Amino acid sequence: MSPAQRIANRLEELARCTDDPLPRLTRTFLSPAMRRAHDVVGVWMSEAGLAVHVDAIGNLVGRRDPTVSSPGRKTLLLGSHLDTVRDAGRFDGALGVILGIECAAALRDRALPFALEVLGFSDEEGVRFQGTYLGSRVIAGTFEPQLLDLRDVEGVTLADAICAWGSAPSALAAEARSPEEIVGYLEVHIEQGPVLEKHRLPVGMVTAIAGQSRARVTFHGMAGHAGTVPMSSRRDALCAAAEFVLTVERLAQDTHGLVATVGQITATPGASNVIPGMVELSLDVRHQNDALCKSANDTLRTAGTLIARRRGLAYEFDTVQESNAVPCDTRLQDVLKEAIRAQGLAVCELPSGAGHDAVALAALCPVAMLFVRCRGGVSHHPDEFASDEDIAVALDVLVQAVERLAQDRG
Amino acid sequence: MSPAQRIANRLEELARCTDDPLPRLTRTFLSPAMRRAHDVVGVWMSEAGLAVHVDAIGNLVGRRDPTVSSPGRKTLLLGSHLDTVRDAGRFDGALGVILGIECAAALRDRALPFALEVLGFSDEEGVRFQGTYLGSRVIAGTFEPQLLDLRDVEGVTLADAICAWGSAPSALAAEARSPEEIVGYLEVHIEQGPVLEKHRLPVGMVTAIAGQSRARVTFHGMAGHAGTVPMSSRRDALCAAAEFVLTVERLAQDTHGLVATVGQITATPGASNVIPGMVELSLDVRHQNDALCKSANDTLRTAGTLIARRRGLAYEFDTVQESNAVPCDTRLQDVLKEAIRAQGLAVCELPSGAGHDAVALAALCPVAMLFVRCRGGVSHHPDEFASDEDIAVALDVLVQAVERLAQDRG
Repeated sequence: MSPAQRIANRLEELARCTDDPLPRLTRTFLSPAMRRAHDVVGVWMSEAGLAVHVDAIGNLVGRRDPTVSSPGRKTLLLGSHLDTVRDAGRFDGALGVILGIECAAALRDRALPFALEVLGFSDEEGVRFQGTYLGSRVIAGTFEPQLLDLRDVEGVTLADAICAWGSAPSALAAEARSPEEIVGYLEVHIEQGPVLEKHRLPVGMVTAIAGQSRARVTFHGMAGHAGTVPMSSRRDALCAAAEFVLTVERLAQDTHGLVATVGQITATPGASNVIPGMVELSLDVRHQNDALCKSANDTLRTAGTLIARRRGLAYEFDTVQESNAVPCDTRLQDVLKEAIRAQGLAVCELPSGAGHDAVALAALCPVAMLFVRCRGGVSHHPDEFASDEDIAVALDVLVQAVERLAQDRG
Repeated sequence: MSPAQRIANRLEELARCTDDPLPRLTRTFLSPAMRRAHDVVGVWMSEAGLAVHVDAIGNLVGRRDPTVSSPGRKTLLLGSHLDTVRDAGRFDGALGVILGIECAAALRDRALPFALEVLGFSDEEGVRFQGTYLGSRVIAGTFEPQLLDLRDVEGVTLADAICAWGSAPSALAAEARSPEEIVGYLEVHIEQGPVLEKHRLPVGMVTAIAGQSRARVTFHGMAGHAGTVPMSSRRDALCAAAEFVLTVERLAQDTHGLVATVGQITATPGASNVIPGMVELSLDVRHQNDALCKSANDTLRTAGTLIARRRGLAYEFDTVQESNAVPCDTRLQDVLKEAIRAQGLAVCELPSGAGHDAVALAALCPVAMLFVRCRGGVSHHPDEFASDEDIAVALDVLVQAVERLAQDRG
C-alpha cells in the first residue's frame, strides 16, 4: 500500500473514534473516544518502530531513540493534536499526527543523530474545558496549576477528569521537557484558510502564528415593549451592538493583515416583541504583528465606549485572552523552504491566523509549521478536505526537512 | 376599606395565583394557577353582585342582568385578561378585570338599561400556545378550529388542554356572542409605555390599536475560521444582520409614529472563533396606519435584499403575522373623553402599540380602551407599577363612562 493510501485509510479510521454517533466526529480531551484513538494510533506508532506511551495529561507519545551518537543526544518533536471540535472534519490535528508517524516510518532504516518523538496532543481545541493547549503546555512546562480548577459543562474539574482517566495532577510537572534536550518541533496542519488554494500550491510555510486578543463586550440598555416605547425613548442594546459589529468589520477591512470577528451574540430577553435590554458579544482580533493587534483591540474598545455613550447605554469590554504572535524559527523555516523547493514548488510564506500546539511549544523550543492546502479553506466542519496528492507532498517535505536537520547534526 | 385600598390588595392577592414559585408570577392559559385565579376572582365578582361562570375556553364571566327594561336588552362588556407573561408584573390584564368588578360594585344599586358583564379572558399573552386572544376570539366568534391543533412546549394540543381542563372543544362555538346583543367593550389597561408619564397624566384615551407586521429574517453567509479567512474572502452573516438592524432603527426613527424592533437574534454556529454562517432575526413593525405599516415592512424587506446581494449572501424574509390596526369606536371614545374631562383632566389621545383583547372583540362590537400611566413605561416585568392614585382616577373614569352610556340608553 502506498503511504498516501495508508494515510487516507488512517484518517478515516481515526475519524471513527468519536464520542458522537457516527458519522459525526467529536473527540474531546480525555474522553472515551480519545482512549480508543490512543489504541488505534498507538498500533500505528508501534508499526513505525516507535515505543509508545500515554503521558500524564493524556498526550500519546511515540519515541525512537537516536541511532547515531551526537553531542547533545537531543529529541526532534513531530506531531499535532488528537482532539477535535464538535462535528469536526477528519484532518484538523489528525493529519499532523499521522504524517509524523509516516515520517518516522519512512526514516525507520535511516540513522538519525537525534531522537524522534511523534506527539498526539490531548487538547488543542479546548472544547471540553475551554482552556486550549492543555497537552502541549504540560510538555512545554507552562501548564499553570490553576488550570486544574477549570470545569467542563458537567461541572467536572480538570483535576478530577485527570484522576478519572487514571492519571494524577501531581504527575504533570514531571512531563515538562528541558529546552536543552529538544531540537525543535515541526507540525504539519491543514491551512484552514483559502490562501494556498488561491496560490494553487499544495503546501505553504508558516512564518508566524498570529497574536490574538479575545474580549467579551456587553451593552446594557433598557428592555421595553416593542409596541409601546417610541423610538426616541429607546435604549436598544442590539442597535448599539450592531454599530459595534460594523465598526469591527470596517477596522479589519482597513487594516492590512488584520482579521476581527464577532462570532457570538446574545440579545436579552430575546423575545420578538421586546426591545433588547442587554446584548453580549464576543470579539476576536488577530494579527501577526503584536503592536497592530493590540492597537486594533484598543481602537475597538474605545469605539464601543463612544457608541454606548452616544446611545446612553452602559458598556463593558473585558479582555478574556491575549496572546502574542509566535514567530517560527528561522533555521527550521529555512529547512522547510529547502524541502519545499526540492519538490519543485514555489514557497508560499503565510502567517497562521489560527492557534496551534506550536504556540505552546514555542515556550520550550524552536517551532515551525507546514500548512497543507484545504478545499475552500473550510475547517471545523465535516466538509474539511485535503487531497491525497497534497498530503503526499506534505509527507515528502516533512521527511526531507527531517533529513536535512539530521545532516546538519550528523 | 376604600376602593383604592381594596384594588391594591386584590392586585396583590391575584399575583399570588402563579404557576411559578412565589414571588415569581407566571399564570398561563388553563394552568393550575388560572383555576385558583378563577376561584379568587369569582368570589370578588359574587361580592359585587355578579353571577359567575367559567366559559368553555376558560374565560371567567361575571354577569349582571339589566334592571331597566330597554329596547334591545343588550350587554356592555368590561374587563381584560387573567393570563400573564412569564415573570410578569401584577397589573397587566389583572387591573382591567379588577376595575371591571369595582365598576360593577360601584354601580350595584344603580339601575342600568343594559346587562353588564365583567370578563377575565383566559389568554391574551399567548405564552402557552403562541396563539394570542384565544379567550376573546371565542367570545367574538372568530376562533378558528385549526387553532385547536396548536401545541404547547410539552406537545399537548390546545384541544387536549381544553379537555384536560374539563371543557370540550365542541362547546366553543356556542360561546360566541351576536353583535346585536352587545353594546360594546371597554377595557382599562396599563399603558406599557412612557407617553402618559411624559405628559404627567394619570390616564389616557386610546385612539386605535396599532397594526403589526412580524417577520423572520435570515441571512445565509459562509461560516469560517475567525483566524484564517481574510476579511476580503468573508461572507459574514452577522455583519449583514447588523446593517439590517441599523436600517430598521433608522427607518422607524424617520417615520412618525412607527416603531420597529429586532428583539431576537441568533448567530450560527455561535462560537467566538467562527465567522457566523447564518443569522436569524425577528422583525416587529407597528403603526396605527395600516398603509404606513405595510410600506415600512416592504421597505425593510427590500433593504435586506440589497444588503444580502451586496455581500453575496442568501436571504429570506418570511412574514409570520400581519394584523391591521383596530380603530376605537368614536362614540365610546367620546364617552371616555367626557368622563376624563369630568375629572378635571386633559385628554391625552394615544395609540396603543401593544395588542389587547379589544383587537379580537372589535370583530364583534364597538371597542374602546382607557390607559393608566405606568412607571417608567415598564411592563412584562416584576417592576411594572401603577399608583393607587392613578388607578382610583381610572376607576372613576370607567364608572362615569358606564353611567353616561346608561344615560344614552336610559
